[in-house]
Amino acid sequence: MIYLDNAATTLHKPDVVIDAVVKAMKTQGNASRGAHGATLSASRVVYDARVKIAKFFNFDKPSNVIFTCNSTEALNIAINGIIKAGDKVVSTDTEHNSVLRPLYHLQKTKNIDLQFVKADGKGVLSLDDFERIVDKDTKVVVVNHASNLTGNVNDIKSIGEIAHKNGAIFIVDGSQSAGTMKVDVKDLGIDVYCFTGHKGLFGPQGTGGLLVKDGIEIDAWKRGGSGVKTYSEDQPLEYPTRLEAGTLNSHGIAGLSAAIDFIDEIGVDKIEGKEKELTEYFYNKAKEINGVKIYGDFSKQHAAIVSLNVKDYDSGEVSDALSNDYGIATRPGAHCAPRLHIDLGTKYQGAVRFSFSYFTTYEELDAAIKALKEIAS
Amino acid sequence: MIYLDNAATTLHKPDVVIDAVVKAMKTQGNASRGAHGATLSASRVVYDARVKIAKFFNFDKPSNVIFTCNSTEALNIAINGIIKAGDKVVSTDTEHNSVLRPLYHLQKTKNIDLQFVKADGKGVLSLDDFERIVDKDTKVVVVNHASNLTGNVNDIKSIGEIAHKNGAIFIVDGSQSAGTMKVDVKDLGIDVYCFTGHKGLFGPQGTGGLLVKDGIEIDAWKRGGSGVKTYSEDQPLEYPTRLEAGTLNSHGIAGLSAAIDFIDEIGVDKIEGKEKELTEYFYNKAKEINGVKIYGDFSKQHAAIVSLNVKDYDSGEVSDALSNDYGIATRPGAHCAPRLHIDLGTKYQGAVRFSFSYFTTYEELDAAIKALKEIAS
Repeated sequence: MIYLDNAATTLHKPDVVIDAVVKAMKTQGNASRGAHGATLSASRVVYDARVKIAKFFNFDKPSNVIFTCNSTEALNIAINGIIKAGDKVVSTDTEHNSVLRPLYHLQKTKNIDLQFVKADGKGVLSLDDFERIVDKDTKVVVVNHASNLTGNVNDIKSIGEIAHKNGAIFIVDGSQSAGTMKVDVKDLGIDVYCFTGHKGLFGPQGTGGLLVKDGIEIDAWKRGGSGVKTYSEDQPLEYPTRLEAGTLNSHGIAGLSAAIDFIDEIGVDKIEGKEKELTEYFYNKAKEINGVKIYGDFSKQHAAIVSLNVKDYDSGEVSDALSNDYGIATRPGAHCAPRLHIDLGTKYQGAVRFSFSYFTTYEELDAAIKALKEIAS
Repeated sequence: MIYLDNAATTLHKPDVVIDAVVKAMKTQGNASRGAHGATLSASRVVYDARVKIAKFFNFDKPSNVIFTCNSTEALNIAINGIIKAGDKVVSTDTEHNSVLRPLYHLQKTKNIDLQFVKADGKGVLSLDDFERIVDKDTKVVVVNHASNLTGNVNDIKSIGEIAHKNGAIFIVDGSQSAGTMKVDVKDLGIDVYCFTGHKGLFGPQGTGGLLVKDGIEIDAWKRGGSGVKTYSEDQPLEYPTRLEAGTLNSHGIAGLSAAIDFIDEIGVDKIEGKEKELTEYFYNKAKEINGVKIYGDFSKQHAAIVSLNVKDYDSGEVSDALSNDYGIATRPGAHCAPRLHIDLGTKYQGAVRFSFSYFTTYEELDAAIKALKEIAS
């Protein structure tokens, strides 16, 4: 199989990641519960992972690296834990349902003033729109770093400046950026960065988290055992405990920690560079195919994603043909990005998404281009 | 190390569990996202796991087997998703903070009428108290199957009958029962059974779930991508999607599925029988040691847990001595069960918990008894 669905999950995990999970499953107890060798081993692995992840994203405070089971949970925690009844919230048409659905729910149940920055026909957001819509009443701005549909990278630094000059908290959905591009949360001015472990970071499924800038208060989400302050009726206030009730997935976190080491050894810049070359290579060939329409803006920084349609064919049928006739794995349909599909005019057709990783080869891209040509002709 | 902290997490995972996780990490895409080989492989593994888990607990509806990252999340989903403002809820003093803290929070924020059945000096709940406290106004009864502190197994079937004759929904915290004893949710009359994967079930950390009886409505918890109904602003209503936003931990679920196979092959009755023998063996020797005080009622069905104190020694010091001087891993302190410690009179001392698994040996128990004798003398 030629696997070009890395924006859904990276299928090729480095051996060191798998080895770390195996080792963890053989040696680690329950992190932060007791003080014998196995539990201390788990606690150390988890703490080391917090330190590494903080460093990886140029984030100051390892104790504010919160582990979750995926970025959806991280986003739900951030959105529900910060936004209060009646707050004004600005988000965008490029968001995934992991941002949209929590926000719609708050709109219905807590009467928040929810406003969206529209995307143009290429899925691009205008900074002028942010300037117009974000104002002093805005409590929170939530934006994805890179669209999981078009691959467009949003101008996070500039959006963050607009948020901050209006006193708003800036939450970024890093589901498609963590591990695939350099993310410096300090330089980018991100207050809460939500990420998943199993995509660009090459970690196991069941891992992810959020980085919470010092001073940002997020209400507890799950409540339960914390290993400390047992007699308090409330979840302890300190991060990370405030947001991490119950047994952590220290097996998965061990894998994620090894994955960060793997990326650090190569260098995230090099990974980003290779993915950029792969993406441009594919894009330049695909756009020349008669009947292929590509979405997104490839003149700017871009994630390793190329979404397209072939003529007016249903995206599901094209993806099935790629899978069944060519052994090429892509993802069709609506990609959990309903507003962006409407802006792109692909509500009913969906789009066929090709997404690459550091392990993707040019031979695989050539095979995909050849298949697309045959399907289009 | 002699690992006697299996109620925190089982350290010895069967090889088949580790192998299944490794295979999953090498082959599985993102479950329910697209239709190529890797994603179908993940979807099949997840579906098979639902079917196996349903069968394991004699539960009818695999689609109502919901996956979570641990039992704390499962309990938070059940408690927050069923209980509404002003509802009367009955729980018990034997509960873990993963039940207590969500309930206290609802008491503070939604003004629920929260009442507790007290435990006696042995940590036992009286059915008469349930009869007295549960009435027609009671919306929900939440009880743990076995106490993580004393190991006492509550009379779930009788409590369920009391709940149901009053029209209440019966939620059971199965953190300490799943995998360690036969759990037939139909026979026991359980409406919502919450379990974790990493304890008695021998699965990986980061797994767990809840079984939701047909007809029980639980509000969505996390909201986000569901792979279906992308254009709906709400989380889809169908189980399991309603309660499973975002990418599932299909790597962990593959391990959990293999763990269920492992247990089924031995037979859960045989596991329960062996753990009972181990527990009785340890209990009978420990109770003869001068200065050792054991908590719980060993005259009835009991989980593989023996909690005790040595004289008036701090439980943390005893546990540290066991770990440092004898290489024996136990858990001291308050065990996230604050109300029960108060009933037992061990609020400040805590208790040293020894907990066993199918893999525990009599030699290990003898070593622990010897160590206890030396510490006590």
